[in-house]
Amino acid sequence: LNSFKVTINPFNKTVEIAENSSLYDAIHKSGIPIHADCGGEGKCGKCRVIVDKGDYRSEKNRLVTPEDSARNIVLACRTFPGSDITITIPDKTLLPYDYIEPLRSCPIAIKAETIDPLVKRFSLRLEEPSLDDNISDLERVKRGLKKAGVSGAIGCSLATMRKLAPLLRENGWMCDIYLLSADNSIVDAGRPSGGSRKLGIAIDIGTTTVATEFVDLESGRSIASHSLYNRQISCGADIIHRIVFSQKDDGLEKLRSLILATINETVKKITGESGRPREDIICAVLSGNTTMEHLLLAIDPKYIREEPYIPAATRFPILTAQAVGLDIPPHSPVMLTPSVGSYVGGDITSGVTASGMNNSDQLTLFMDIGTNGEIVIGNSEWMIACACSAGPAFEGGGIGDGMTATSGAIESVKIFDMNRPPVLTVIGGGQPRGICGSAMIDLMSELYYCGLINQKGKFNPDISKMIRKIKNTLGYIVAPKERTEHGKDIVITEIDIANLIRAKGAIWAGVSTLLKKLEIPFGDLQRVLIAGGLGNSLDIERSVSIGLLPDVERDKFCYLGNASLSGARLALLSEKARRELDEIASKMTYVDLSTTPGYMDEFVAALFIPHTDASLFPSMSS
Amino acid sequence: LNSFKVTINPFNKTVEIAENSSLYDAIHKSGIPIHADCGGEGKCGKCRVIVDKGDYRSEKNRLVTPEDSARNIVLACRTFPGSDITITIPDKTLLPYDYIEPLRSCPIAIKAETIDPLVKRFSLRLEEPSLDDNISDLERVKRGLKKAGVSGAIGCSLATMRKLAPLLRENGWMCDIYLLSADNSIVDAGRPSGGSRKLGIAIDIGTTTVATEFVDLESGRSIASHSLYNRQISCGADIIHRIVFSQKDDGLEKLRSLILATINETVKKITGESGRPREDIICAVLSGNTTMEHLLLAIDPKYIREEPYIPAATRFPILTAQAVGLDIPPHSPVMLTPSVGSYVGGDITSGVTASGMNNSDQLTLFMDIGTNGEIVIGNSEWMIACACSAGPAFEGGGIGDGMTATSGAIESVKIFDMNRPPVLTVIGGGQPRGICGSAMIDLMSELYYCGLINQKGKFNPDISKMIRKIKNTLGYIVAPKERTEHGKDIVITEIDIANLIRAKGAIWAGVSTLLKKLEIPFGDLQRVLIAGGLGNSLDIERSVSIGLLPDVERDKFCYLGNASLSGARLALLSEKARRELDEIASKMTYVDLSTTPGYMDEFVAALFIPHTDASLFPSMSS
Repeated sequence: LNSFKVTINPFNKTVEIAENSSLYDAIHKSGIPIHADCGGEGKCGKCRVIVDKGDYRSEKNRLVTPEDSARNIVLACRTFPGSDITITIPDKTLLPYDYIEPLRSCPIAIKAETIDPLVKRFSLRLEEPSLDDNISDLERVKRGLKKAGVSGAIGCSLATMRKLAPLLRENGWMCDIYLLSADNSIVDAGRPSGGSRKLGIAIDIGTTTVATEFVDLESGRSIASHSLYNRQISCGADIIHRIVFSQKDDGLEKLRSLILATINETVKKITGESGRPREDIICAVLSGNTTMEHLLLAIDPKYIREEPYIPAATRFPILTAQAVGLDIPPHSPVMLTPSVGSYVGGDITSGVTASGMNNSDQLTLFMDIGTNGEIVIGNSEWMIACACSAGPAFEGGGIGDGMTATSGAIESVKIFDMNRPPVLTVIGGGQPRGICGSAMIDLMSELYYCGLINQKGKFNPDISKMIRKIKNTLGYIVAPKERTEHGKDIVITEIDIANLIRAKGAIWAGVSTLLKKLEIPFGDLQRVLIAGGLGNSLDIERSVSIGLLPDVERDKFCYLGNASLSGARLALLSEKARRELDEIASKMTYVDLSTTPGYMDEFVAALFIPHTDASLFPSMSS
Repeated sequence: LNSFKVTINPFNKTVEIAENSSLYDAIHKSGIPIHADCGGEGKCGKCRVIVDKGDYRSEKNRLVTPEDSARNIVLACRTFPGSDITITIPDKTLLPYDYIEPLRSCPIAIKAETIDPLVKRFSLRLEEPSLDDNISDLERVKRGLKKAGVSGAIGCSLATMRKLAPLLRENGWMCDIYLLSADNSIVDAGRPSGGSRKLGIAIDIGTTTVATEFVDLESGRSIASHSLYNRQISCGADIIHRIVFSQKDDGLEKLRSLILATINETVKKITGESGRPREDIICAVLSGNTTMEHLLLAIDPKYIREEPYIPAATRFPILTAQAVGLDIPPHSPVMLTPSVGSYVGGDITSGVTASGMNNSDQLTLFMDIGTNGEIVIGNSEWMIACACSAGPAFEGGGIGDGMTATSGAIESVKIFDMNRPPVLTVIGGGQPRGICGSAMIDLMSELYYCGLINQKGKFNPDISKMIRKIKNTLGYIVAPKERTEHGKDIVITEIDIANLIRAKGAIWAGVSTLLKKLEIPFGDLQRVLIAGGLGNSLDIERSVSIGLLPDVERDKFCYLGNASLSGARLALLSEKARRELDEIASKMTYVDLSTTPGYMDEFVAALFIPHTDASLFPSMSS
């Protein structure tokens, strides 16, 4: 087989690929992260690149116009070099590489006196050995731990046994011992550190974004945090595409290395910013949906998407950073939050733990609106959960100008004058480059209640100068090109709105089906907790107005932000939280919506703004 | 710094070393195992090599004669190349590379119905999952194990989680699960295997020899076994020299890699011979003295030889083969037998477990005569132990023509005619190349009772033609050169006998001191168990006659052979044995002889054949 060199600009990076490999394969090989919602199947049109030089063959694709072709714009996944070739990846195709402040997370404070971290420090002062007291160094340390109140058998890592002898002698028989609470095993030992404390890291592995937080294990204080797009996006925007990708040659290993690269990059960034060295990290808790946790551990997720939808595992032993591949001290324990099933994952058990609904008598609706939508209803006695295939619309996936709630994202929209651009707020305060979930909700609400779109989301083109023909559809100019970062109009199209309606309809249908199954009227809900990456400026009123959230008293709502990350942080700090995670995973009943009678009807009925049944939204009819 | 090439014959292997490095360093670098009892300190004279070509500088050494120098025979550890150089390693310097049948080990049968292996196989037939029964594959397996009687929390290795999903589906929801008894964790899973069983390996890591045995974990049957010289011998013959060597640059890592190379070589050999693939191995139990266990795990043994003689650890968690470096499937659990202290190691707890003395009412003396001598006295109620620096004489160390009890070793000697060569038996039946422990005992006894040596071990040169002047001392021709494998005389010299007397004296003094401390007369001993590498033809009568063993009724004696290996095998097969190992390690009291009043007097008094106090050996005076 021949091979060709592919030079990728603006990075001036050259990779060699075999004949019959696509430009998409070449970009993958280069490690440059790009958008590819469909995972390289020619269906999403996100992997556009420009061929600057060289021969190629492109498969015909409806997402590539004759004008595109004339300008050598091609889909990387459908284009095969016929010679050495030079391409340019346009900005819009590149996965943004910004570090972003994670969403405000759940405002859960943990009292210092109740902190019982995953790995606990014991500062020991031991007796010097003598001929009469000549037990081994390790037995001496264990004796010290027992005096300090540790009961039961105590284990020890090999790495610690290796360092113990010189450590004790160089520090006058004083040392700090780090004990993993789960099994009373010593994971590390160090010099007596006085006031300085070790850090834990909490990581939320979202399908779209990865958020990492450094946590002081003794004060419980968050030191610093950052988020990054999950680089697996190059292999598909949602978990189904990721699972499909995992079945390709080396697909699983590639997905694993991409999520590890993403996590390790956030860790590196925070160590740099916080001035706390990597060596200060002693443990990690990771929380992700079932597929993300499988991919992280290179466990084949294949059967998650085949009926009867069985994950390989839902509970994971505590592993070492080395075994997982995290770039923190190799013997650090790594805990993954437990899943309930294939579509209710560790992110949900974690979010529910953070929400505290498992300790409340109040009948609570918990909604995680992320790349998927998960719904939990219950209280301290019982919990029932389902997952809706909402798709990544509210995180920016499948929306032409969509993006996650990060710097440059339009986060709220208000239309004052139908014929002039709306008033916007932009995260970070600069010029906008896209629209995040909270602004999409605002737009749907504003467009509908101003009469620019009808109940079905179709534009009324005659009513506003801001509605334009865009390619084969209609769109509303959210920000004209003069005011955007990239000098192009930011628009929301009928196709985008249709996607958003499907997404909110799926979530609504989930809530509605579950409540009907339980014979609970909406009005009986005592709390509605919303988690997910919608953006900090989520407007509850407008979310109700489009039929995403139920029309109940507004003081029942609480926006939790990234509850999965909060739960991971709690698990770092609290033995009670770790126990609760397990209990929640055991207690939660999973309802498969695809086989639940009535779900499809609920879904179809919800494909209107706010709903075909206006009586469900009494406060909107006024 | 310059570097020189050293070509090593007869292997035609070339290594490059820095200026100021010795030929000993070069040989180490080449990986060719040689004798070096003193660990390269210029004191033992074992590392002789011949320089064929090239410049060199040799330090003056009393062990190198002018004749040696004239023939370019040098000590590798005292010789430094001044140019590229070619050397030859003579046979006698090379560590024999033969595989040897291990000693007959303790005849302990374990009843099939009481077998409860370290890793137990469960053959499961699981229910196929459905939408109504959609727990994860791993939870399904756990459910199956619980039905099969496993109680408590069940863990699982990452590697098993990775293989579970396809395994179950390809085998109609039947599989074999391998469960580590210690913590109820799944260490492996495989296809339903029907009758075929996994193997465990028992390994005795002796200072001088390593013995490995493959054991069927379900029948308890030994499949095959082999021994090999411990390649660490290149770094010193006894544990003190090994510890000194471990303090050199990379010394610890080198010692670790040498013991791993030795073990892995025995495993490879047995897999080849038995036709059972490496993949059939599922776990291992290793038993060695405290220093050997430290070196295997690359734990610095430094403080074992410095007062107050503290090991880093005496109890080790169950590790994986990967973490230890064993060349068996990486996730196989590896157990190390627990030590009592710096000089009473896992080989002794293992040997005592195998001996069963911990379950007996009889007052028992257990003696392990290996490179060190360890003594245990006690019964099911109590145990007290000590270690005597006997040195490796009875395993062939420090004896000119000494060797371990393996093919080519003279194992028994009888003098019929003082002026003619003695009658010999040779292990394997061929021509001899050295003398093993049992023959050394025979020789001392025969030479003494025939009047060829006196009570102090000095030759009477006039009495026999077989006594010759050998270098600066006298020696007895055990086998004339016409009848030996290598065509040189096999002799025992006055120096050798002095070494043997010191060795037996040290062991005797240990027994005697301990008994006096306990105020127990010799006659009260109800059993005397002898373990160690003395050879299968150990003659009890002669051992008593030279004062190595106490003069008690002969039917109280039992030779156990390699009891450490037997104990390791028992630990593979029996939960009771694993529990007993721990109990023995906790229960045994260690007595440090070097600080015990009277020990030195006992030692000096024992430097005679059989002893200065003949009344201790009433049966000898007849």
